[in-house]
Amino acid sequence: MTADQLFKQIQEKRSFLCVGLDTDYSKIPKILLDYEFPVFEFNRRIIDATADYTIAYKPNLAFYEILGAAGWISLEMTVNYIHERYPEIFIIADAKRGDIGNTSKMYAQAFFEKMSFDAITVSPYMGSDSVTPFFEYPNKWVILLALTSNVGANDFQQIVDQKTNTRLFERILVKSQHWGNEHNMMYVVGATRADMLSLVREHAPNHFLLIPGVGAQGGSLADVAKHGFNKKCGLLVNSSRAIIYADCTNDFAKVAREKAQEVQEEMSQLLTQYHII
Amino acid sequence: MTADQLFKQIQEKRSFLCVGLDTDYSKIPKILLDYEFPVFEFNRRIIDATADYTIAYKPNLAFYEILGAAGWISLEMTVNYIHERYPEIFIIADAKRGDIGNTSKMYAQAFFEKMSFDAITVSPYMGSDSVTPFFEYPNKWVILLALTSNVGANDFQQIVDQKTNTRLFERILVKSQHWGNEHNMMYVVGATRADMLSLVREHAPNHFLLIPGVGAQGGSLADVAKHGFNKKCGLLVNSSRAIIYADCTNDFAKVAREKAQEVQEEMSQLLTQYHII
Repeated sequence: MTADQLFKQIQEKRSFLCVGLDTDYSKIPKILLDYEFPVFEFNRRIIDATADYTIAYKPNLAFYEILGAAGWISLEMTVNYIHERYPEIFIIADAKRGDIGNTSKMYAQAFFEKMSFDAITVSPYMGSDSVTPFFEYPNKWVILLALTSNVGANDFQQIVDQKTNTRLFERILVKSQHWGNEHNMMYVVGATRADMLSLVREHAPNHFLLIPGVGAQGGSLADVAKHGFNKKCGLLVNSSRAIIYADCTNDFAKVAREKAQEVQEEMSQLLTQYHII
Repeated sequence: MTADQLFKQIQEKRSFLCVGLDTDYSKIPKILLDYEFPVFEFNRRIIDATADYTIAYKPNLAFYEILGAAGWISLEMTVNYIHERYPEIFIIADAKRGDIGNTSKMYAQAFFEKMSFDAITVSPYMGSDSVTPFFEYPNKWVILLALTSNVGANDFQQIVDQKTNTRLFERILVKSQHWGNEHNMMYVVGATRADMLSLVREHAPNHFLLIPGVGAQGGSLADVAKHGFNKKCGLLVNSSRAIIYADCTNDFAKVAREKAQEVQEEMSQLLTQYHII
């Protein structure tokens, strides 16, 4: 998917919502447990209920790997379902991969060829050759970790580089722009640090940013918009638990739809307020 | 597995060899392709041929994920096979995982409970809560990336922290020792930078180090031993391609055994030379 196609979807749906499919088997309503692939059944219902308000889905790999081969099949079924039924929707593998060149090449093949993901999250620690193999696929995206939303983010990401007097996450923003560009690379920036978003925007004014941490993790959407918007929106804001587990009864999909719509309405207002649509 | 058990195995086999199961479907001898799980069949033969000289096996997840659910099944079969047949051997998931706390917890469950891995490689970029959930499993290990063997390692790992005047990989060595200890944490240190091993040993004298990059990637075993040994060996040196793809005919397992034995003999000499056994 191209950046233009993504922006077109944002304009049409008046939303920049990404729904995180962190589907926890233990939280799935009992009524679905009789299916051969309950995780897929849960996802399918969530997807059908929220697709009107959602421009991206983001399965979190850990929640599938924990189920072994059955989890992997549920993941593939989910990606295929979105791809066939809602071809306009962007699909992100939240996998945090990254390894030496020949291994990253295999990860790229696994996620972009074997499965039809549009994007994969990648950890920057191993540098250039752990990231660049993913760029060999046209219209596919790397979403590089820059500033994450967790407590441990402060351990290393804020270290100040003696040579350039900039922080590690800034070095990553600067250096990685020699490897990819705004048409094949986004960055993860945690919503819990909206104040840092302005700094990120100084280095990467035109890139899309994937923002986790709104909702259950506590970030504010208005703050994120204020500091993170660019002319073409430039944001994908993820919400997982606050939508998919908003209700744990058989009404889960209906309630998920309501929650997604609530977020979309707030997003629509913000997009209008900042003259993006 | 405990550090003492690992050292006992090193003493008995007079080896600190880890064989990387980077099993590439396209390189498997044709004779195995009729099996339902050719990757497992290849691994089984490699394992049986090399177990006498090997103290650890390290499947690289990318090579299994590329095959989807069938790859995952081959991986599980491989781990189960080693665990049942060679219970003394240490099994490492080369997965480079690491995510926010609740996600890392699921990865830990996937690799340590659902599968019987003894250790998993983890990327440090997201800090404390991306690593600590793995420590909740007694006698299981985190192998944290410190200094990797690839070209891109120079992009960020060598950045000098203004505050402490130490490099990023040194910060990781120092900081992570507040999270884990020499009984549940090892570090990845590339053999391509044996000169850096002495520096690593200043920060982590007693930890085991997992050393990739000997063999096909070009590091020297004698250099690694010189700079990396501690009193209890403290090294697991990995070789993948140079052993498992030493021969691509139907004799592959026999030749892999010969190659593993060659490495073990060199290791045995080094262990004797440095008075470790």
